[in-house]
Amino acid sequence: MRVSVIGGSSVSDATYEQAVSVGRLFAERGHTVVCGGLGGVMRGVCEGASEAGGRTVGILPGEDTTAANEFVEVPLATGLGHARNALVVMNGDAVVAIDGGPGTLTELGFASVYDRPVAGLGTHDVPGVRQVDSPAAAVAYVEDRV
Amino acid sequence: MRVSVIGGSSVSDATYEQAVSVGRLFAERGHTVVCGGLGGVMRGVCEGASEAGGRTVGILPGEDTTAANEFVEVPLATGLGHARNALVVMNGDAVVAIDGGPGTLTELGFASVYDRPVAGLGTHDVPGVRQVDSPAAAVAYVEDRV
Amino acid sequence: MRVSVIGGSSVSDATYEQAVSVGRLFAERGHTVVCGGLGGVMRGVCEGASEAGGRTVGILPGEDTTAANEFVEVPLATGLGHARNALVVMNGDAVVAIDGGPGTLTELGFASVYDRPVAGLGTHDVPGVRQVDSPAAAVAYVEDRV
Amino acid sequence: MRVSVIGGSSVSDATYEQAVSVGRLFAERGHTVVCGGLGGVMRGVCEGASEAGGRTVGILPGEDTTAANEFVEVPLATGLGHARNALVVMNGDAVVAIDGGPGTLTELGFASVYDRPVAGLGTHDVPGVRQVDSPAAAVAYVEDRV
Repeated sequence: MRVSVIGGSSVSDATYEQAVSVGRLFAERGHTVVCGGLGGVMRGVCEGASEAGGRTVGILPGEDTTAANEFVEVPLATGLGHARNALVVMNGDAVVAIDGGPGTLTELGFASVYDRPVAGLGTHDVPGVRQVDSPAAAVAYVEDRV
Repeated sequence: MRVSVIGGSSVSDATYEQAVSVGRLFAERGHTVVCGGLGGVMRGVCEGASEAGGRTVGILPGEDTTAANEFVEVPLATGLGHARNALVVMNGDAVVAIDGGPGTLTELGFASVYDRPVAGLGTHDVPGVRQVDSPAAAVAYVEDRV
Repeated sequence: MRVSVIGGSSVSDATYEQAVSVGRLFAERGHTVVCGGLGGVMRGVCEGASEAGGRTVGILPGEDTTAANEFVEVPLATGLGHARNALVVMNGDAVVAIDGGPGTLTELGFASVYDRPVAGLGTHDVPGVRQVDSPAAAVAYVEDRV
Repeated sequence: MRVSVIGGSSVSDATYEQAVSVGRLFAERGHTVVCGGLGGVMRGVCEGASEAGGRTVGILPGEDTTAANEFVEVPLATGLGHARNALVVMNGDAVVAIDGGPGTLTELGFASVYDRPVAGLGTHDVPGVRQVDSPAAAVAYVEDRV
């Protein structure tokens, strides 16, 4: 399956490592990681997935694919600005949210709009998010729900 | 100023009347109402604003302007689906949120992304939303913040 | 009806005056002008419509409504960049094209996609465009076709 | 590099075979094919690239990735309708246009907007398109220009 991983673009080392773990686990299990293609959680999850040989897709806000972090295998430019957040969620069968600010909040809303199951690691506590306490639990939850 | 009014597309009579009151108050004070152009809170706020002689703009998800409720003065078709939620918020100087589900949650996120003050009436309790207890308090809050 | 007027963003004085005439004629006949909200033909048509008391809607590429020319009555920010060209055409019942470069070419394509009649004044010679020789002929053509 | 291949969604057998050849040639030379993900030329180019072991990206108008033709390796849903045409062009370093109607015309306009070289095989004769007479000539032209 494809999993959208969303979260803060500027995060602590500990949060970054969580994102790396989530990416690695998904890749090891044959799933593709979709994200917003930039820094923080987006970079971490791509780094983890990439190291484990998995596919990573980065859906970017701008018109230039070179803005993608170096672990994005398939960058997609949109030129839509923040409206691209809808596309990040739309392109996953499920969502994992790690930390995150206002942009992540828009994506959690879109996850409910598009009826995607969501596992949350230290993210907003809003309807539709199953809070979990580890990368492994996040992966297990979304695998079970899709 | 222009105020984006967001909220549920299918609401109780009491919530609908709140939206009508918010629309009427903004129109009486010379403000333009921007909304998603469809039913529920979107229709109520346009009805109230329209009755008071105010301007209403409806930013629609589909390609057809005839989908707008009958109180929208300036309908705008986008064909963007739910991604149009970003545009609804972007086009107001401030936001009032009344009730609402997942779509409204995306818009509350965009309000923070675009740094718009938000007054909330029975809506999601997320960062950046000042919860108020009446239409008049909502209007006063956003007028004070813009 | 609403008419989308498209064309170059940087034009000669003669072309600008054509746009002013088109705007004035539409306004005098009670029609709303929709355009991309910026300079050149977009500004000219809004100036003409505005002087004649007509309504003008400007659908902007950026996130900031202050980028609209001073004759736009209802500015709409989209943040979509050039993809907003689809929305400019979608929101008119017909199209008048005056001069114009690559952006106008995208809009002429969208006019066919959305099945809008198009009158052209010195614009691209592509399928679906009726070339006319005066602002009055452009107005007459689209009124006849809608 | 990545090449956007655009053209009609319903084409003759001969045109379809041209698209297959274009896709095969690009894949054999290590390039990724980007297209609109649906039928006709979009399907042909993906079939050719896929048979030759190349990568294919399909940028879809709807919200559902299952609408992609069976030769798309990386489908991207956008939910943007025809405005997604901008994204198809934006994501290639160059463009090959084969046949095509109004949607292709919008994409030829976007190619000029985004300053992409374009080789054309039996497509619209508009500024910025180098008309060529074979798939091999199309590939040679865009390789030379990027």
